Amino acid sequence: MMPEFDLIRRLQEIISPVAADRQPGCLIGIGDDAAVLDLPAGRQLVVCTDTLVEGVHFLPDTSPRSVGFKSLAVNLSDLAAMGADPAWFLMALTLPSADPGWTDAFAEGMAELARKSRITLAGGDISSGSLNISITALGLVSEGRALTRSGAQPGDLIVVSGAPGAAANALRLLRTGGLPDPEDLQALEFPRPRLALGKALQGLATSCIDISDGLLADLGHILEQSSMGAELELSKLPCPKSLELLPDDIRWPLQLSGGDDYELCFTIPPSSLGRIDELALRGQTTLTVIGTVDDNPGLSVKDPAGGRYEAADRGYEHFR
Amino acid sequence: MMPEFDLIRRLQEIISPVAADRQPGCLIGIGDDAAVLDLPAGRQLVVCTDTLVEGVHFLPDTSPRSVGFKSLAVNLSDLAAMGADPAWFLMALTLPSADPGWTDAFAEGMAELARKSRITLAGGDISSGSLNISITALGLVSEGRALTRSGAQPGDLIVVSGAPGAAANALRLLRTGGLPDPEDLQALEFPRPRLALGKALQGLATSCIDISDGLLADLGHILEQSSMGAELELSKLPCPKSLELLPDDIRWPLQLSGGDDYELCFTIPPSSLGRIDELALRGQTTLTVIGTVDDNPGLSVKDPAGGRYEAADRGYEHFR
Repeated sequence: MMPEFDLIRRLQEIISPVAADRQPGCLIGIGDDAAVLDLPAGRQLVVCTDTLVEGVHFLPDTSPRSVGFKSLAVNLSDLAAMGADPAWFLMALTLPSADPGWTDAFAEGMAELARKSRITLAGGDISSGSLNISITALGLVSEGRALTRSGAQPGDLIVVSGAPGAAANALRLLRTGGLPDPEDLQALEFPRPRLALGKALQGLATSCIDISDGLLADLGHILEQSSMGAELELSKLPCPKSLELLPDDIRWPLQLSGGDDYELCFTIPPSSLGRIDELALRGQTTLTVIGTVDDNPGLSVKDPAGGRYEAADRGYEHFR
Repeated sequence: MMPEFDLIRRLQEIISPVAADRQPGCLIGIGDDAAVLDLPAGRQLVVCTDTLVEGVHFLPDTSPRSVGFKSLAVNLSDLAAMGADPAWFLMALTLPSADPGWTDAFAEGMAELARKSRITLAGGDISSGSLNISITALGLVSEGRALTRSGAQPGDLIVVSGAPGAAANALRLLRTGGLPDPEDLQALEFPRPRLALGKALQGLATSCIDISDGLLADLGHILEQSSMGAELELSKLPCPKSLELLPDDIRWPLQLSGGDDYELCFTIPPSSLGRIDELALRGQTTLTVIGTVDDNPGLSVKDPAGGRYEAADRGYEHFR
């Protein structure tokens, strides 16, 4: 067991070895009542908060390294969906005990992604209680360049990065005692937020969201905020390798309603299709057109035979 | 039971009836992947996060109105200690169930303080799990005007607002089946962050902290960050009315190590004493000089007979 203040110091040393207040723009970091940050001129602040709860967002025996990585990843994914550059984050960490073996591995998982994403821990709070990690991420975007959920237009093409469904497939197998494909497990435990893609979509995408609750649910948010409808084509959905041989009634729900892949779903005018192909070539992800925005209310899904597919499950819902 | 997205909307309507994105500086509020905020020129961002956990920071049968009020108050208290003006906050809320009776009262308690403090809910996240409320508060301060913990100088006077110990006395009685004094209960359940005082201390206090863990522990943070020592005089400590008749061995630990009053402790040069008296007259709180900063390491406490008082308990510690 470590006293609370030693634990704070240790987490900070692992997660952000160069303290926040030695980074440009951070005047006061960890160790005061609050952090003081100086934003560069012409930049707007993008801020989001997302929580992981043991037994709800991850299985109780998940490695601490994955828990640390993923609790930052889900927040960076929200910054990615806004096209923002990560800058700082704060962590409110509730732990059942201060076990250095667990907290060190947790911090190392988080540090790996923090380094790669150039984001610095600028503050936090530690409490005792059921394991709960709430992170607030602060990013920066040039004036007026943030991507939103609300700009989709009739005729826009709906594009998805990667192949959603892999993380949900890993979770399905873990829950039933099966052995997930290593790539699927990686997608579930160490999701890579699409930060470079989000930034490249500035001025190109008319709307954007990250897929945390499932493709149908999250595309539904775009349509709701844009007051639009859409048609999605099941035959066009990119399929993770491990799902290719599964029967359609298992595969489609995973692809449409499985959360946790943290891919981006966005809309573009048809005239921008060429630029998307370029982006896919340049980036490390596939980008696939999966449907079209229209002004008929609702989201309809066309099955490969041309009929209408009715999804039983729209995505994750707390308090069901 | 309410679906998650209805719950988010309902909380927002109660807590910030005028949505964040209709407030100056907030370009995008609740409903997108992140909020987008535009800081006024010449202002720096002050940001902190603090969590309340049921059974740790408040007793399980605490009214939801108090839980809502206090989870915002503890964060505003950190902004107060920095001399910052509250601007926006984000809430990561983990709830065992979505009971509208509980969540409405919770939101109303929070709304009361949000209105009074002119702070707007700009985003959040809702999860299922053990009750845990993590708030991130964003405030603004004019360039270089933030109060810190690190500027105390030898000879500075140590000042405390109000009379710490009342909240801890209420908690002591609640835990042992006693009936707390209504004023003490108010201090425990509806603490008033000292925002006006913090702001008035800009350019006056050499250091400042809010008392959340207890006077000794929190003054200790000032001394550590300032690389100073101090002498505190027990006879000068302002005593809450309800504590006046208690024996010293009960009273002093409550005053020195009881957390939760959210008063401010700060240091001033002796030449500024007159301005402190003015502030106390103008404000709604007493301000009392309780000791002096020196350059001998450590914090010593003088008892009324002139001897040295040894505190058994320095303040709240998670993971004891």
